[in-house]
Amino acid sequence: MKVIAFDADDTLWVNEPYFSEAEQHFCQMMENFLPIHSTSQELFKTEMDNLDTYGYGVKGFMLSMIETATRISKGTIGLDGIERILAIGKELIHKPIEILPGVEDVLETLSQKYRLVVATKGDLLDQERKLAKSGLEKYFHHIEIMSNKKEHDYLKLIHHLDIQTNEFLMIGNSLKSDILPVLAIGGHGIHVPFHTTWEHEQVSHQIIHENFREVNEMLEILDFL
Amino acid sequence: MKVIAFDADDTLWVNEPYFSEAEQHFCQMMENFLPIHSTSQELFKTEMDNLDTYGYGVKGFMLSMIETATRISKGTIGLDGIERILAIGKELIHKPIEILPGVEDVLETLSQKYRLVVATKGDLLDQERKLAKSGLEKYFHHIEIMSNKKEHDYLKLIHHLDIQTNEFLMIGNSLKSDILPVLAIGGHGIHVPFHTTWEHEQVSHQIIHENFREVNEMLEILDFL
Repeated sequence: MKVIAFDADDTLWVNEPYFSEAEQHFCQMMENFLPIHSTSQELFKTEMDNLDTYGYGVKGFMLSMIETATRISKGTIGLDGIERILAIGKELIHKPIEILPGVEDVLETLSQKYRLVVATKGDLLDQERKLAKSGLEKYFHHIEIMSNKKEHDYLKLIHHLDIQTNEFLMIGNSLKSDILPVLAIGGHGIHVPFHTTWEHEQVSHQIIHENFREVNEMLEILDFL
Repeated sequence: MKVIAFDADDTLWVNEPYFSEAEQHFCQMMENFLPIHSTSQELFKTEMDNLDTYGYGVKGFMLSMIETATRISKGTIGLDGIERILAIGKELIHKPIEILPGVEDVLETLSQKYRLVVATKGDLLDQERKLAKSGLEKYFHHIEIMSNKKEHDYLKLIHHLDIQTNEFLMIGNSLKSDILPVLAIGGHGIHVPFHTTWEHEQVSHQIIHENFREVNEMLEILDFL
C-alpha cells in the first residue's frame, strides 16, 4: 500500500446532516406550494437533471434549489424566496467543521507510515476551506477534488499519483462512490458507515471481496493497517 | 525544467469573450432598472464580495448574477428574470470550445520533452469538461484546478508535483495570476497576452525578471524551449 485516500464528507467530518437541514428549511419555505416530501422529491429530480451540468457541491445545490422554487411555485414565490435560498446556501458554506470520532488518531498514526490524500467530490474551494478549517490538512500530502467517483475517475487519480492500482486504498462512507469502483479496478477499500446517506449515494449491496473490509468505526482501521 | 503548466481559459481556448457576452445579456435584461454600465459594476461588486464564499467559476457567476438582479431590482424583477439568468449560465457552460492559434502545435512539441499539466481556476467539472471537449487532454499528464493562483497556491501545487520551484514553468495570459506569483516563488513564467482580460485580473506592470519572457503568440514559445 503506497497511498491511502480518505473521502471527506461524512468520513472525516459531518456533512450530510447539514445538507438535510438546509433542504428541510427549503422545503418548509415551499410549503404553501407543495407538501415537504414532494418538494424534496422535486429538488432531488432537479439535482439529478443538473448533475452533468453543475457537478457535485454546494453551489450546484443552491442553483438547483432556485430552479426548483421557480418551477413548483409556477413563478409566484417572490424574490424574497430567492434571497432566502441564497442565504440558506451561504449558511451551509460557512458551517463549522465537526470532525468525526477517531479520525484524528487514525490520521496521526497512518500519516507516519503511508502517503495520505483526501479524495472527495464537491466544490473545490468549499472542500479546501473545510479541510483548512478542520485542522487536518497537516496529515495529508494533498487534496484531490474529483468531479465524479467512477472507475474512470479513480484510474485517472491513480495515474496522477504515479502508483499501481493495488497500491491504492480508499477509505470512505459511500459504498457506491468510495468502495465499489475502487474494488472494480483492483484497488483496496475500507467502508466506514455513516448514519445518514444521501439518496443518490445509496446502494443495497452485500460485498464479498478479498480487497474489502468494513469497520464499525474509524479507529478499527488501525487493527489491520 | 521538469513541469510546464498551462493556464486554460484564454490561454488554451477562448473564455473571457463568452463571459462578457453572458454579462451583456444580463445587463440588457436589467436595463429597466439600471444603465448597462452600472449593472456591470454592480455585478462585479457582487462577484468580488462573494469570491471568498464561492470561489472562481461559472456557478458562482450565476449565483452572483441572481443576487445582483434581486438587489438592483429591489425585488421586482420577477421570477422569469431568474429563469433567464439560469438559462444564460447553462448556455455559457455548454459553449463550444475554440482552441487558440498555435496551441495544438506547441503542446504536441512540448509534450515530447516535458511533463505538461493544466493549471487553472474555475469550477472543477466545467474545466474538466472543457479540456475533454478540446481534444487536448492527451498532451497533459493531468489537470490541476486551483481555488486561487497566489504564491501560496503555487507552492502547494509544486509540492504536490514533487519538484523544485525552479523546475516549474507557468504559461498563461494573466500577469496577475499566471506570472507574478510564480516569479515571486522562484519559478519561470511566459506571458502570452490575450486581447481581453477580466477586470479582476488586470495589472499594470512592467516586468523585468530573468525568469520571465513575453511572447506575442503561442507559437513563439517554441523558439526558446
